[in-house]
Amino acid sequence: MERLEQQINFILEVDKIKNIYRQTYLADGSRKENDAEHSWHLALMCAILGEYSNEKIEIGKTIIMLLIHDLVEIDAGDTYAYDDVGNTSKREREIAAAERIFNLLPIEQANELRALWEEFELMNTPEAKFAHSMDKLQPILLNTASNGRSWREHGIKETQIEKRNANTKDGSVELWEYTMKTIQENVNKGNLIKG
Amino acid sequence: MERLEQQINFILEVDKIKNIYRQTYLADGSRKENDAEHSWHLALMCAILGEYSNEKIEIGKTIIMLLIHDLVEIDAGDTYAYDDVGNTSKREREIAAAERIFNLLPIEQANELRALWEEFELMNTPEAKFAHSMDKLQPILLNTASNGRSWREHGIKETQIEKRNANTKDGSVELWEYTMKTIQENVNKGNLIKG
Repeated sequence: MERLEQQINFILEVDKIKNIYRQTYLADGSRKENDAEHSWHLALMCAILGEYSNEKIEIGKTIIMLLIHDLVEIDAGDTYAYDDVGNTSKREREIAAAERIFNLLPIEQANELRALWEEFELMNTPEAKFAHSMDKLQPILLNTASNGRSWREHGIKETQIEKRNANTKDGSVELWEYTMKTIQENVNKGNLIKG
Repeated sequence: MERLEQQINFILEVDKIKNIYRQTYLADGSRKENDAEHSWHLALMCAILGEYSNEKIEIGKTIIMLLIHDLVEIDAGDTYAYDDVGNTSKREREIAAAERIFNLLPIEQANELRALWEEFELMNTPEAKFAHSMDKLQPILLNTASNGRSWREHGIKETQIEKRNANTKDGSVELWEYTMKTIQENVNKGNLIKG
């Protein structure tokens, strides 16, 4: 029973991700979304949009990667994409978090999930590249649906978001083209600042 | 682009599940959880606990089943497990919802996810049985962590919850034994009414 107890402890610990809020609003603009909702959304998007990956990917593996990709934020918090100061210490804070959180699991599961998280971070494999495409595309969709509510509040510029979404191309050229088109539509609507 | 537009429409429509609240509280008891958070949690639990399945299961398939199992509640709402009146019309309401929501997708994806949802509902395959084990175990864990907050509010009895969790055995005898042990601990703490 000890092994199962360790697994249950992990499962209860990660419940905390439901209280880690992001800057992005729900599609209806009613409130900000949290990391659990975000991770669920990305995992489902991966099942639906996997066909657009540049390279063949293992969908199941990519989905698990997406389910766990933000667990480190339980300790490290959500660092807003356009927070330059926060982003300098992000990697260090997240490594310490990974060390603590994944190690609640039995050792071989801890190592497996930790490796999957590192794979996501390194963005070198087809699965990691496509997972990042999902992670970038989803806030584009939610911001577009909520008339750029979060972008407007933070005064985000067209070029900032184009740069932020550049690596979507590494996972999916088609979804990157869709992203660029959608960014232009948001500029035209005033949801993003031109230039 | 029409195919992608259909897929994006579906992805935005299912965002609504983030506003469908369940009766179960988060582990810290601070608020009720919603279906997106719940589905994320079950999917991750499946990746961690798959080894306890009575029969060999495809983890990736079971995870996708869990990611979509509650989408019908966007239209049908969450029916509390112990709401006898609500549960008489549940199946009918959920079929109508499945018809509308899955059909936002391109036809072959609509059919695939609809079939996966039906498989979950019918509980005949190893994957569907284990998915139900996750769906039953998770509220046990959250209720235990929050000192039975939701059970106390609804005056839930030991026998009600034992009956509700009986089919966990079909997915995993080990997790069912853990469940029965945990129910007894909750009875002893007064989180569930004895008898």
